[in-house]
Amino acid sequence: MSARAGIVVTGTEVLTGRVSDRNGPWVAERLLDLGVDVAHITICGDRPDDLTAQLRFLTDEGVDLIVTTGGLGPTADDLTVATVAEFCGRELHLDTDMEVRIADIIRAWQRRRGGDPDSAPMMAGIRKQAMVPAGAHPIPPVGTAPGVVVPAAAAESGRTAIPAILVLPGPPAELRGMWSEAMAAPAVLEALARREELRHATIRAYGLSEADLAETLRTAERTVSGFDELEITTCLRNGEVEIDTRYPHTADTAYTDLAALLVEHHAHQIFSTDGATIDDQIADALSGRLIATAESCTGGLIAARLTDRPGSSAYLVGGVTAYANEIKTALLDVPADLIATHGAVSEQVAVAMAEGAMSRLGADTAVSTTGIAGPGGGSDEKPVGMVCFGVAIAGRPTVTRTRVFPGDRATVRTLATTAALHLLSEILADAADR
Amino acid sequence: MSARAGIVVTGTEVLTGRVSDRNGPWVAERLLDLGVDVAHITICGDRPDDLTAQLRFLTDEGVDLIVTTGGLGPTADDLTVATVAEFCGRELHLDTDMEVRIADIIRAWQRRRGGDPDSAPMMAGIRKQAMVPAGAHPIPPVGTAPGVVVPAAAAESGRTAIPAILVLPGPPAELRGMWSEAMAAPAVLEALARREELRHATIRAYGLSEADLAETLRTAERTVSGFDELEITTCLRNGEVEIDTRYPHTADTAYTDLAALLVEHHAHQIFSTDGATIDDQIADALSGRLIATAESCTGGLIAARLTDRPGSSAYLVGGVTAYANEIKTALLDVPADLIATHGAVSEQVAVAMAEGAMSRLGADTAVSTTGIAGPGGGSDEKPVGMVCFGVAIAGRPTVTRTRVFPGDRATVRTLATTAALHLLSEILADAADR
Repeated sequence: MSARAGIVVTGTEVLTGRVSDRNGPWVAERLLDLGVDVAHITICGDRPDDLTAQLRFLTDEGVDLIVTTGGLGPTADDLTVATVAEFCGRELHLDTDMEVRIADIIRAWQRRRGGDPDSAPMMAGIRKQAMVPAGAHPIPPVGTAPGVVVPAAAAESGRTAIPAILVLPGPPAELRGMWSEAMAAPAVLEALARREELRHATIRAYGLSEADLAETLRTAERTVSGFDELEITTCLRNGEVEIDTRYPHTADTAYTDLAALLVEHHAHQIFSTDGATIDDQIADALSGRLIATAESCTGGLIAARLTDRPGSSAYLVGGVTAYANEIKTALLDVPADLIATHGAVSEQVAVAMAEGAMSRLGADTAVSTTGIAGPGGGSDEKPVGMVCFGVAIAGRPTVTRTRVFPGDRATVRTLATTAALHLLSEILADAADR
Repeated sequence: MSARAGIVVTGTEVLTGRVSDRNGPWVAERLLDLGVDVAHITICGDRPDDLTAQLRFLTDEGVDLIVTTGGLGPTADDLTVATVAEFCGRELHLDTDMEVRIADIIRAWQRRRGGDPDSAPMMAGIRKQAMVPAGAHPIPPVGTAPGVVVPAAAAESGRTAIPAILVLPGPPAELRGMWSEAMAAPAVLEALARREELRHATIRAYGLSEADLAETLRTAERTVSGFDELEITTCLRNGEVEIDTRYPHTADTAYTDLAALLVEHHAHQIFSTDGATIDDQIADALSGRLIATAESCTGGLIAARLTDRPGSSAYLVGGVTAYANEIKTALLDVPADLIATHGAVSEQVAVAMAEGAMSRLGADTAVSTTGIAGPGGGSDEKPVGMVCFGVAIAGRPTVTRTRVFPGDRATVRTLATTAALHLLSEILADAADR
């Protein structure tokens, strides 16, 4: 039996959808990678009673560790530490070392901003953030809010056992920066002692239907020995299917057999068996090349995606968002009469855009999109969701494709961006093979 | 006392962070707008015991309504309806009308895909999706999965009272499409009878620190009569602060007084008191204008954001992502010696990029960015996070600004995009005043 954990996300802005939570799933994934079973994530607003109810629920569920995120700020509505301390029946006391440490951080910040770090409200806020439950282990802050680990407590007369509780701040960068130190705290190590290290592998496919995948998985269930030891999660996202498997090392052969079966059944759709994303693969394939983008309906999303990663300036020279037809002509040399004859949304124009981008931006590779993102602008012949793509590679014939995507404007734009990257990757692989 | 609700999000892919949940916060916001108090959102994987534990938790917390999302598919791991039925002590029975209805939908889909809608696994899946707990009210599907409302049940000997449970599918478009019909179901109306309709208003500010806002709110607490009736959530996102208030109609005057105080204290930072976003305001201000973008470090994000909304082709002619210096010169007419003298990241180059975009793309308005997104490329003089902006408007001097943003590459790019939009909005407002 493995160690179990629950996660409590606090914050009225998360509960009400003002901010989408990035901490719960991140913490869950880290814990799963450590071999900890995560059964529950709960979200509550900044109300002590609701937080206490969730701590009680997870305690009653018998988890070994509770991780809370958020509610560690200097203001009055940040109540996590006090609520956790009360739940555990521990007094709060001032950690004077921590108080000095936070004050130093605030002073450095305030010097740059010109504020007064020694004002009474500021000092009160610092003191609040330096309060630690008795017997707990503070985790130094990355921002200004320290975390804290409250060790587990055995059952006592009139009180059930309480699991270890790890209290971390809400800003994702702070939480992530404090994670390693938190995982190394003795009370956390002890709580997770029973964890079973699991392997984690990801296979990615593009253009594979969930129904076809489900059928292959049913076959695997019958034919792969040890299949039961594999915990498989499948997930469809932006036209890609992600097949995520966690398994103990005793199931290595089962996983190898599963992966082989998947590749056998879906060779054309599976593009990655080592966890690499399409973005990783394109970055590799573009090594030594120079690429330019020419976008109409995707409006800059492809360029933004290609420049997401550090070092992309080594291969991305630039791009043109050519929304108006005049821009397609002026900046990408698309002949005006080509647009007049075939329409702006046509394979002919997609080809001319890619070739124009390549020559005008001095690149050896280019990718283009022109389509109808909607909601207006569709016709019987060219419906909303129709997008034409072009991929130009110097010295080779330019490739073009047309696809029709379902969904609203944002969905069409996102699916078209993913499709463009897959087409580009495919053509780059072809070019490398010759 | 208002009606209370809890939300249960099911799905291993959500729990493990493969997919970020879009349903919990959406449902919470709809319920809050109806005047229902939402205390808890819980997330569990596709495990009946964990789902049952969460239903038990919310029942014990005394909510009037539980909304579940997900787990309604045709496959064996989709277990929500059966688990809810067991939790409520109700038998499942086949709703034959619903079975016919789902089969019709599947046949229409399969005809287009060329599959066999009458295959044995397909029929079994349809039958599973048409099972309804005794006494429950089915909600017709938008996709293939019907929802269901199980009415509340009073306490009986040996069993506590059970709240009404509304079961909805996981795909956000299906859930949203079924929401109105679900809210009109008699068992839901009855469960929410005690709800108190609330008003909802949003004020948005840019460049306002949370500390300064907190101080104004403390003043409001002392001076605004009826302040206690206002439920205020503040949230910092991408450099903007959103101040969200829900209140009963009896607190209209209190809200008016609060809004006036906020505007009085933070006139320079508050850009919207009517809920409009910066994107809305820019779309309005660009009416009758033609804008072009010239982006370096933001790599297409500004163009992508401007083309997010339908109808943006009326004012966005296009843009250039000028990553390489040669592109800044070739496509935006930035003199090579200007780059050599001042560096690519400089106000001089930002100005030349905006002016070049305006003239080369035939626009009357342009916005530009050039900066160091990181993690590499910084120096003492020009640190990582430094971004220069330009806004050109025909017939007026081009405006430039420099800012240094904290955070990682993605954060710098996002903050720079937001900053560019605010600078653009400010300059457009100035131009409209003259």
